[in-house]
Amino acid sequence: MMLEAGLVFMSDTRTNAGLDNISTFRKMAIWEAPGDRSLTLMSAGNLATTQAVVSLLDERSISSEERAPSLLAAPSMFQAARMTADTLREVIAEHADTGQRADSTFNATLLLGGQIKGGPPRLFLIYPEGNFIEASADTPFFQIGETKYGRPILVRAYDPGLSFEAAMKLLLVSFDSTLKANLTVGAPFDFHFYETDSLKTGRTGRIDIDDPYYQSVSRRWGEALREALEMLPDFTIEPDL
Amino acid sequence: MMLEAGLVFMSDTRTNAGLDNISTFRKMAIWEAPGDRSLTLMSAGNLATTQAVVSLLDERSISSEERAPSLLAAPSMFQAARMTADTLREVIAEHADTGQRADSTFNATLLLGGQIKGGPPRLFLIYPEGNFIEASADTPFFQIGETKYGRPILVRAYDPGLSFEAAMKLLLVSFDSTLKANLTVGAPFDFHFYETDSLKTGRTGRIDIDDPYYQSVSRRWGEALREALEMLPDFTIEPDL
Repeated sequence: MMLEAGLVFMSDTRTNAGLDNISTFRKMAIWEAPGDRSLTLMSAGNLATTQAVVSLLDERSISSEERAPSLLAAPSMFQAARMTADTLREVIAEHADTGQRADSTFNATLLLGGQIKGGPPRLFLIYPEGNFIEASADTPFFQIGETKYGRPILVRAYDPGLSFEAAMKLLLVSFDSTLKANLTVGAPFDFHFYETDSLKTGRTGRIDIDDPYYQSVSRRWGEALREALEMLPDFTIEPDL
Repeated sequence: MMLEAGLVFMSDTRTNAGLDNISTFRKMAIWEAPGDRSLTLMSAGNLATTQAVVSLLDERSISSEERAPSLLAAPSMFQAARMTADTLREVIAEHADTGQRADSTFNATLLLGGQIKGGPPRLFLIYPEGNFIEASADTPFFQIGETKYGRPILVRAYDPGLSFEAAMKLLLVSFDSTLKANLTVGAPFDFHFYETDSLKTGRTGRIDIDDPYYQSVSRRWGEALREALEMLPDFTIEPDL
């Protein structure tokens, strides 16, 4: 989510390969060079694919000797997104070409956001095909994965002037709506607040299912929804229409 | 939706074959024999399929001479659901077998609810494969079509004791959440309140996009959501975590 204050990232940690094989994995990776850049990558889709992408990007950014371009050397956010997209496409193509058949596809979708010195904060949604789109004032937030349940509240309540604290509340409410309706999304939630022009990783953390703040937001949101609904006028069935 | 008061049905009317071919079609059909039964069918999916199913069921219920069993003659809701499911499967199979290829499949999903003298009100969700499931106290409502955006509020606010008037409000709020997020769902909305043990069609009607009640619910729900969110405590970023 793009705010005036900066970028807010939140990801869940639920992965599943069928209902009897549910695990917790981190879906958020952060690269930084303090004073120069901070990049956050979130992923949805095939876990093997997304882990391979993160590992490749990671290796390349560590061994500066290698010829492969590195996220930490990318001259702009656009170039960083291109690099990430190319890596994603390579990994998917590699698995698809082995001739092995899988129950599910190797596809994955990524969100890459951050800021590189000399440019503004930018946020990209990267498709499995390796192309990508950028967030703008008209489309100031992206969701990937199981997006629909949590979308209505984001559409209604997003405001670019939100503080990090209020954005966190909105994101937890949105995730909570999904949690209540769908098993493929689950706590804990990882978050990162990137502050505009800080050029370093901001506050990060993990909210667990039994976190008292999350619990109180979840419970009170349910109550507030029911109350809000009750306060709306009921439909009038006209006696003789 | 199953309530103590009866069954509440609501359907939108948007159909599309690509974004440049959007039309309005009724997706709700009602058969009744006052004093004996009232059956309501709603559909999602391929319009040609669902219209063929409705036409076939309709023809069979009119010409009592024909050997095909009729919805108006089905001895129970379960048999009515089986009859509808068989008709759906036949129509899909017929189209699929012609060897023609289509951009989209001929699939459709149906909801059939109502009451036949001697039995309780029952509600069924019928799959394209011709099998079906029944609503129960644990799963008291069904959605078909674009279900996800509108689901969280239903999960939170459904209560079997709702009046028809309150249920109408809840359903409009749920549809409105979907409308705000997705182009494939659109007003007007058709509704039918079937009153338990009335054995006849209850109040029916159509809510248009510029209906003053719908407009007021939509606007005030947006405001109420934002207010409810504001009243929740913001997340606290601890100064030195």
